[in-house]
Parts: sequence; C-alpha cells; structure tokens
Amino acid sequence: MKRTAITSLCLMILTGVFGQNKTIQERLGYAKETKLLIIHADDLGVSHSENSASIYALENGSVNSGSIMVPCPWFPEIAAYASTHPTADLGLHLTLTSEWKFYKWGPVSLAGEISGLLNEGGFFNDNVTALVNNSNAQDVEKELRSQIEQALRFGINPTHFDAHMGCVFATAEYLQILIKLGREYKVPVLLNREAQKFVFKVDLDKYINDKDVVVDKLLMATPEDYKKGMPAFYTGVLKSLQPGLSCILLHAAYDNEEMRAVTIDHPDYGSAWRQADFNFFTSEACKTLIGEEKIKLITWKEIRDKLLR
Amino acid sequence: MKRTAITSLCLMILTGVFGQNKTIQERLGYAKETKLLIIHADDLGVSHSENSASIYALENGSVNSGSIMVPCPWFPEIAAYASTHPTADLGLHLTLTSEWKFYKWGPVSLAGEISGLLNEGGFFNDNVTALVNNSNAQDVEKELRSQIEQALRFGINPTHFDAHMGCVFATAEYLQILIKLGREYKVPVLLNREAQKFVFKVDLDKYINDKDVVVDKLLMATPEDYKKGMPAFYTGVLKSLQPGLSCILLHAAYDNEEMRAVTIDHPDYGSAWRQADFNFFTSEACKTLIGEEKIKLITWKEIRDKLLR
Repeated sequence: MKRTAITSLCLMILTGVFGQNKTIQERLGYAKETKLLIIHADDLGVSHSENSASIYALENGSVNSGSIMVPCPWFPEIAAYASTHPTADLGLHLTLTSEWKFYKWGPVSLAGEISGLLNEGGFFNDNVTALVNNSNAQDVEKELRSQIEQALRFGINPTHFDAHMGCVFATAEYLQILIKLGREYKVPVLLNREAQKFVFKVDLDKYINDKDVVVDKLLMATPEDYKKGMPAFYTGVLKSLQPGLSCILLHAAYDNEEMRAVTIDHPDYGSAWRQADFNFFTSEACKTLIGEEKIKLITWKEIRDKLLR
Repeated sequence: MKRTAITSLCLMILTGVFGQNKTIQERLGYAKETKLLIIHADDLGVSHSENSASIYALENGSVNSGSIMVPCPWFPEIAAYASTHPTADLGLHLTLTSEWKFYKWGPVSLAGEISGLLNEGGFFNDNVTALVNNSNAQDVEKELRSQIEQALRFGINPTHFDAHMGCVFATAEYLQILIKLGREYKVPVLLNREAQKFVFKVDLDKYINDKDVVVDKLLMATPEDYKKGMPAFYTGVLKSLQPGLSCILLHAAYDNEEMRAVTIDHPDYGSAWRQADFNFFTSEACKTLIGEEKIKLITWKEIRDKLLR
C-alpha cells in the first residue's frame, strides 16, 4: 500500500473516531470554543406565582427555557400559555413527588393503577427516598407516560424532559425509563454525568448512546450559595462558564402570599429564594454579563430539532 | 268516656301532633320567635386566599361556620387548621365539580373507580349539568365517601355536610345519597325546601323524616344583588330575617393575585365578589346589626350535638 493510501486510511479512521467524539457544541454546528448555555426555569405549573414570574422572565428576562409540572393544580394555566406560544421553549418537569406542607397534588394516571407512588392521603410522597422505597418501575413508567400524554392533550409540544427533585434520576432503572421515553418522543432529556455520578451514584455511560444529548455542566444554587447572595453566585457562574453545553437550573416566582404559603416552613428553594432567582435573571446586569462573556444562549428546542428530529 | 278524659285524650293527640310540628328553633330549645342564623363561608380549601380570609372572618368577623372542599389543592392547609381548632364550626363542602378556567382538581377516590365523574383531563366536570349527564349514583356515592373518609383521616370532625355548586342536590337520587350519608355520620346536611323545589325541582319532603334538619331560609347573593352592592343586600337580609333557622351562604377570600387568577374570566362569585363578602362580614356594621335585630347566631355543631348525637 502506498504511503498516501495509508495516510488516507488513517485519516478516515481518525475522522470516524473524532466524528463520534465531537463535542456537543460541534454536533450542534458551533465552534468548539462556544460557551452554550440554557437558562432554565423549573417548576412551572406549581402555582400562579411561579407561572406568572416564569412567563415574565421568559418574555423579558434572560431565562430562555422552562419545564412544566403536569400533575400540579396550575398546570392548565401554563398549558394554555404553552399552547398559544409555540415558540416558547417549554418541556416537561416530570413529577413523582409533592413536597410542600399544606399544598398537595397527586398523579395524572388513574390512581388505582399506580398506587405504589402514593401516600395514604392519595398524594405523591414528599421526598425521593420514600418514592424509591415504595414504588416500582412499572408504576413510574405508567405515570410518566400519563403526564406526557396529558401534556400533549393540552396542546403542549414539549421541547425536552427533565425531572422534579431529580425523581427520575434516582435509580438506574428510573433513569433508563426516562432515556427510553426521550427517545420514543424524540426529545432530549436532561442528562449530566457529574450529577448522575455524585448525586445519584448511577453511571450514565452505561445507558446512553451517541445520539443522546448530555449536558456538560449543570449548575444550580445550593442553600450555601443562596446565603452568600444570588447575584454573587450567578455572576461567578457566568464568568467561569467553559466551552460546551451548560445549563443553569433556577426557580422563578414572586415572593407573595401564595408562594410564601406554598413554601411554608421551607426556606431552601422557598418563596424569597425564587424571587432572588427572578430578580437576577430579569436584571440588566445579567444580560450585560452574558454579552461580555460571549455566552451563546441555546434552547432545548434548537437541540431537539437539530439532533433528534 | 268523661269529658275530662276526652279532653286529656285530645290534648295528648294534639301534643303528639304539635310535637312533630315543633319549629326547628323549638327543637333546639329556643323560643318560637327566635331568629336563628348560621353565617356560613363556602369553598374553604379552594385556595390559600380563601383559607386565610375565611379563617380571619371566622376568628374576627361575624362568620360562624364554614365548609371544606376536600379534593382541592389547599385542603391540607385548612385541614391542619380544623384539626388544631376543634371548636371551629367546619363541615364538608362535598365537591364533584371543578369550575375554574386555569386551576383544576380531581377526585379523592381512586380515579379508575369513578371515571364517570371525570372529564378527559382527569378533572371533575366544570358544571353540574355535565356531572349529571355523565355520572351515576354509584360513582357519586363512592367519591363522597372518599371525601368524608379523607377528611376524617386528616383530623377533621365535620359539623355538617353541604355541597359545592349544589352538585349533590341536583337530582333526587344524589339528594338521597347526601341524606343517607348525613344520617350515617350523624351530621346535619344542608336542606332547604325552597331551594330544592325551585332550583332543583326535587320534592324534599319525599325523602326526609322528623329527625332531619331543614333550614327554613337559605340566603345567598345573586349577580344582581352583587351589582347593587353587597352591604345593601346583606343589610336587607339581616333586617328582614324571620323567626326560624336561616343560613347565609357567602364566599370569603382576599381579592389578590392568586384569587384573581383562580376566578379569571368569571366575575360572578369571583375575586372582588369574595372580597366584598369578606368586607361585610368582618365589619362592625354587621356585628351591630346582628345585635340590633336580636339575631341569635347558631352553629351547625350546636345543631348536630343537640339533635343528632
């Protein structure tokens, strides 16, 4: 074989290898050094306060994506918004827990079919450990499908799936259901190696393939960060953002009577916290910083439509 | 037979007859001319706004009774209040409809067992006609029992049963279920001949016995009354109250963002309406009028404990 032929062969093999190892930003058509960021509001549907603040932040602030809790009382309000605003980047915040003290919701499924997911009041459990200890994969899959189908019935065209309180990331079995549903409905699901490994002790790479979308960096304020001040935390996040696909998870709501009552006795991710998130991501300072740091905002819809449809 | 014996016999017969024909105020140990009144707040549990305004009106205003919607999202909040305030006069506002546009609830029962009560979103129908056309008595009884048992499970000791939007008064069949449940749980149910006859076209007297409690006069503001002003309407009601057992049905809530969003596109019984109800029944003018008109406030609890237990 001639030298040039060998070189060509090597190049072809290398191209093949590198093709598979392309960064997510390259797969999406951006340069390797691009800092892609999704600024994502969780918990839409949980309350009127959350809905109205999140819609404001989507329309006027730097928030460019959000996800909806289908089993929650205010779901019909955000579903009406989603169905009349088809360009809004809205996915489903799949939900198997009902964590607040005096304000509860239950399943979308016929409850008799997924009774393992419910406490004796007929509501979801208030924490993920109780969920994992009492339910099974069949119930989880049935209820997640019910939530997706309910969303479609209400005119939502989901751009992505993620999970409330990480409920569906909690075990390898649940995670596989989430990945399967994402493939089936052709939407990206929120996956991140670090979160899977350190929070949920699941090795993500066992369950994904080349077509799945993995977020390089998932960023969310902790109670420690909140205590030090949200502007400082988020400014630090934006200034230290690296090339690749990052996602900030926040919770936007107005700190009003309704939201204080929803989050009563729970300052972490509570009403004032959500107002602080709202304040930063609707500020001019945030917009300026995004420009200065040459951050490219990207939606789940762009990712879905470029890579999965 | 001697004349005195005949007279005695007649007296005994008359006493027997009059015994059965005793007025409700006499059965309760009051003089015949007593104007007994229950000032009753409906819809507790529907929202945080409704809960907090109704609790304020019960504790500080002239409202002396209320009833709780078990299937609603804010039920756990009012249940916690009821269970820690056992002297509060709280009954169950049995609920088979979910009438608001963007804020919904479904059944307490395992939904598969009462699917006739639900629309395709898995919520209750938004009006009583749809309920009657699509459901059956078995489903109605099952769901009402689930609501009662859920209330007991949450520590509520109900003083009475009534019905949201009159859902359980709508047919003779439903009405009989309500009466049966009242007898079984030994609580009075809200019954009124006029409302039954003119609104629901059901002849109440076919279904009740001497032990059942019937309210002589049921009073609730109409959209016409609201337009003319609530203070004028309620002042008229209090000034023209007759001896017997009367019951004013009102809806107290704060006219805030949450309540405006709950009642969107529905001014009748809407947010401002509920604030107007709250304003009148927490006013000094109302208290003064009750005193001036020699109205005796009575709770469902007093009625329950004197006549049914």
